[in-house]
Amino acid sequence: MGISALRPGTRNDTGIQAMSEDLRTRFGERFQTGEAIRAQHCHTTTWVPSQLPDGVVFVETVEDVKSVVRLAGQHEVPIIPFGAGSSLEGQTNAPSGGISLDFTRMNKVLSVNAEDLDCTVEAGITREELNEYLRDTGLFFPIDPGANATIGGMASTRASGTNAVRYGTMKDNVLAVTAVMADGEEIRTAHRARKSSAGYDLTRLLVGAEGTLGILTSVTLRLQGIPEEIAGGYCNFPTLQQACEAVIMTIQLGIPVARIELMNPPQVRACNAYSGLALPELPSLFLEFHGSPASVKLQSEAFGEIARDNGSSEFQWTANPEERAKIWKARHNVFWSAKGLRQGGTVIATDVCVPISRLAECITQTEADIEAHGLLGPIVGHVGDGNFHVSLVIDADNPAEIAAAEDFIARLNSRALAMDGTCTGEHGIGQGKQEFLVAELGGAVDVMRQIKRSLDPKNILNPGKIFALD
Amino acid sequence: MGISALRPGTRNDTGIQAMSEDLRTRFGERFQTGEAIRAQHCHTTTWVPSQLPDGVVFVETVEDVKSVVRLAGQHEVPIIPFGAGSSLEGQTNAPSGGISLDFTRMNKVLSVNAEDLDCTVEAGITREELNEYLRDTGLFFPIDPGANATIGGMASTRASGTNAVRYGTMKDNVLAVTAVMADGEEIRTAHRARKSSAGYDLTRLLVGAEGTLGILTSVTLRLQGIPEEIAGGYCNFPTLQQACEAVIMTIQLGIPVARIELMNPPQVRACNAYSGLALPELPSLFLEFHGSPASVKLQSEAFGEIARDNGSSEFQWTANPEERAKIWKARHNVFWSAKGLRQGGTVIATDVCVPISRLAECITQTEADIEAHGLLGPIVGHVGDGNFHVSLVIDADNPAEIAAAEDFIARLNSRALAMDGTCTGEHGIGQGKQEFLVAELGGAVDVMRQIKRSLDPKNILNPGKIFALD
Repeated sequence: MGISALRPGTRNDTGIQAMSEDLRTRFGERFQTGEAIRAQHCHTTTWVPSQLPDGVVFVETVEDVKSVVRLAGQHEVPIIPFGAGSSLEGQTNAPSGGISLDFTRMNKVLSVNAEDLDCTVEAGITREELNEYLRDTGLFFPIDPGANATIGGMASTRASGTNAVRYGTMKDNVLAVTAVMADGEEIRTAHRARKSSAGYDLTRLLVGAEGTLGILTSVTLRLQGIPEEIAGGYCNFPTLQQACEAVIMTIQLGIPVARIELMNPPQVRACNAYSGLALPELPSLFLEFHGSPASVKLQSEAFGEIARDNGSSEFQWTANPEERAKIWKARHNVFWSAKGLRQGGTVIATDVCVPISRLAECITQTEADIEAHGLLGPIVGHVGDGNFHVSLVIDADNPAEIAAAEDFIARLNSRALAMDGTCTGEHGIGQGKQEFLVAELGGAVDVMRQIKRSLDPKNILNPGKIFALD
Repeated sequence: MGISALRPGTRNDTGIQAMSEDLRTRFGERFQTGEAIRAQHCHTTTWVPSQLPDGVVFVETVEDVKSVVRLAGQHEVPIIPFGAGSSLEGQTNAPSGGISLDFTRMNKVLSVNAEDLDCTVEAGITREELNEYLRDTGLFFPIDPGANATIGGMASTRASGTNAVRYGTMKDNVLAVTAVMADGEEIRTAHRARKSSAGYDLTRLLVGAEGTLGILTSVTLRLQGIPEEIAGGYCNFPTLQQACEAVIMTIQLGIPVARIELMNPPQVRACNAYSGLALPELPSLFLEFHGSPASVKLQSEAFGEIARDNGSSEFQWTANPEERAKIWKARHNVFWSAKGLRQGGTVIATDVCVPISRLAECITQTEADIEAHGLLGPIVGHVGDGNFHVSLVIDADNPAEIAAAEDFIARLNSRALAMDGTCTGEHGIGQGKQEFLVAELGGAVDVMRQIKRSLDPKNILNPGKIFALD
C-alpha cells in the first residue's frame, strides 16, 4: 500500500459520539471538536495525507490522561497521543477516527539532578523548552532531530538526529518512563540508576512503540555537560566513496565526533542556491567536535589527517562560534534548501540506515535511481551511523510524480534491506512504512502483534500504526 | 521469600518422562540424564541452592533448538537455556524440573564485519573465545562481567561489568538477536544498521529476559577498536564521600574513563592480605583510560587534578603494561581476596545500583549495616555507574548467618530503592530478587507477566524466573 492509497479504518461512530459527550462533561472547554483544531492535530510537516481525529482533549495531569484512557476503553474508541505533530510517517493520524490527546500543556520539568546528569519531564515538553530550562545548570539534552519535537514524541518514535553518533538515540538517553496503559493504570518502567538488570526492559519497549502500547506521561532523561569547547569543520572529497572511507576510519579509530554529516553534490548545490554560498559541488562532510580545548584540537587534527589520506580538500576547522556558524550554515538550511528547489513543491523526507561499509554503494545506487525516476532529491546523511535522508521535492498534485516517488521509496527500502540495513533509522513506521517493516523483520512483526494484543486487547491505543492487526 | 526457603515448583512428571524418551530418540548420546551432568547444569558460582534439571540436551544447531522447544511445547515441559552457568541469582535452576539446553557447542563466530565494527556469533560462545578470535582484527568486545560467561547468557541477564561506564552494558552492545520463540519458530529482531526505529524494540525486550520469552540462538554485537594506548591509575581518599565526589566530577566533565572502580577499606585490607600488598586501608579508586597516547595523557592528567581537588593521595598512572598490571593487581583479585577472608567460607555476591549522587551515602549506610549484622562483607563498585557489590562471606551451614545475610540483603535492596536506585545493576532477578523487583516496579511487573503469558502461553521457557506467574 502506498501512502497515496491510505485507507480509513473502521469507525465506531456510536462509541465516538458517546465518548465525546463524556469528554465534554469531564473536560468542558478543554475538549474541542472544531475542524480547524482537529486539522491541526494530524501533523505539521509530513506529506502523508491527514486523517482527522473527532476531537482533541488538552490534558494537563496524569489523572486527565487516565480518565481519557478509561473512557476510551469503556467506549472502545481510538486515542492518539499528540506532541508537536512533527512526525513524518503519519504517526498522529486518526485512520479510524477517535480522540487526540494534546500534551502541550503537560510540559513541566519535574526534577533536575545535576550531579546525576538526569532530569524528569512531562511528556509534552519540547526539546527546546527543556534546553532553555537547563541552560543555567551547565547541562543539556543532546538529541536533536531537527524539529522542535516534544520529548514524549521523540521517545515514542525512537528519534535521534545529527549527534546520535556521539550521544546515541532516544533508546540510549531515556532512563525511565511513566506510561498510562490501556487499562488506565500508570506504570513506572525504571528509576534513576544508570543501569539495571531488573526484569524486562519495558523502558525500551515503550520507546519506539509510537503510543500503541501505552501513553507516555513522563520521561527520565540522561543529560550531558555542555562541552567546554565546540569546534566545527568542513571538507569535500572527489568521490562519495572517499568521503565514506574517511567516515569509516574516523569511527574505527574511536574519534568521538559529535556530528559527522554528509551532503551529496545536489544537496550542496541546493544549499549554495538557498544560502548564497559557493561551496564546491562535491561530496562534502560537516563535522562538530565537543570536549576540552585540548581534546577538540586533538580530534580535529586526527580527523584532518584521515580526510587528507582519503583525498579531501583541506579540512578547515574552528572553535570560534561565528566562524563555526558560517561553516555549518549550509547544513542548517538543508530542509529549506530542498524546499527552495521548486516553487510550491512538497518535500517528502524519507530515511533508511545501512551498515557504514555499504553506505557509499547504497547512496550511489540511490542517486542513480533518483535520476532514473526523473526526481529531484538531494541527500544528506548522519553518516557516522549509516543513516541518510532523501528529500524528494515533488508536485503533490501530480499523480505521476507521486507514483514515481512511491516506486523510488519502495526501491530505496529494498536496497537498504538487501544491505543488512533498516527501513527507517529515525522516522519510525507509522502508516508509511508498514510494508517495509514486514519485509525487514518478517515473523518478528507477528511477535509485536502478540504483544500489542496482550497489552491493548481492545486496540484503543493509536491503532493502525506500525502494523495492521487484522 | 529468602533464597534459603527456595521451593520447588509443580512438576509435570508424565510430560517430562515422555519428552525424555523423545529426546533420547532424537539426540541419542547428546541427551544426558546422569546426575553429575545434571548437577553441572545448575550453576557454577552462586550460593543459590541447586535445583537439577531432569536431563541435558547438547544442542548444536538452530534446528536442534527448534525441535527441543517444539517437544517442550507438545509435552508442556520447562526448558532452561544454559551457557557457562556463571549467573548469580539462580537463573539456570530447574525449580519445576525440565530440560537444560547446553549451548557450549553452539560457539561459532558466524561473521565479523570489521569496517562496521560488528560481528554475529552463536549464543554459546564465551566472551574470551570471542576476543581470542577477534585478536588479529584489531577489534575487541568490551563487556567484561568478570566470569568467562557466554554471550547468550550475558545478553539474557543484561550483563555489564567494570567498563560499562565507557562502553555501556549488553543493552547497548547487542545490535540484534535471533531467538527461537515458544512456538518453535525463530525470529530475527533487527539487522546490522547501527540504529533503527522500525517497530517495537524486540532486541532490548529479549536482552535481560533471562530466557523466559525466547531462546537466543545468535547475537549480533557491536565491537570496538583495540585502544592504541591503555593507561591505569590508582589513588586513595581520606573519606568515601571525597572518593565519590571525584567520581561525580569526572563523569560530569565527560572524561571518557574506561574503568573507575572503588574499593572500601575492608576490601583493600582483604586484597592486601590476599595479594601481599601494602596499600593504605582507605577508600581507593582504580582507573583505566583508553585512547591515543595523547588522549590517554589528557584524561589521566584531568582526572589527577580532580582527585587532588578532592583530597586524594597522589594519582599514580602509567601506560606501561607491567606497571599497570601492578596497580590493577589488587582489583583483579577481589573475588579471591573475599574468599580468602575465611577458610571454607561461602561468598554471596550481591549488587545494587543507585544514582551516583547517593552512592557515598548508600555505601556508608551499608557498611554500618554489615557491621550491625556481624557480617564480613568487603565492597567493590563500578562507581561510574553507581553500581556496587557486597561480597558477604558466610558459613553456609550456619542458619543464623544465612538469616543475617538475608536480612542484610533485604535492607540493602530497600535502601537502594529508597534512593531511586535498582535492586540489581547487572546480576538480574532470577529466583533471588523477585520480591525486590516487585518492590521496585510494582504494577510494571504485571505488564511483564502479561507479555510473558502472551509469548509463552504454556510457560515452558525458563519458568519461575524473574517473577512467579501465579
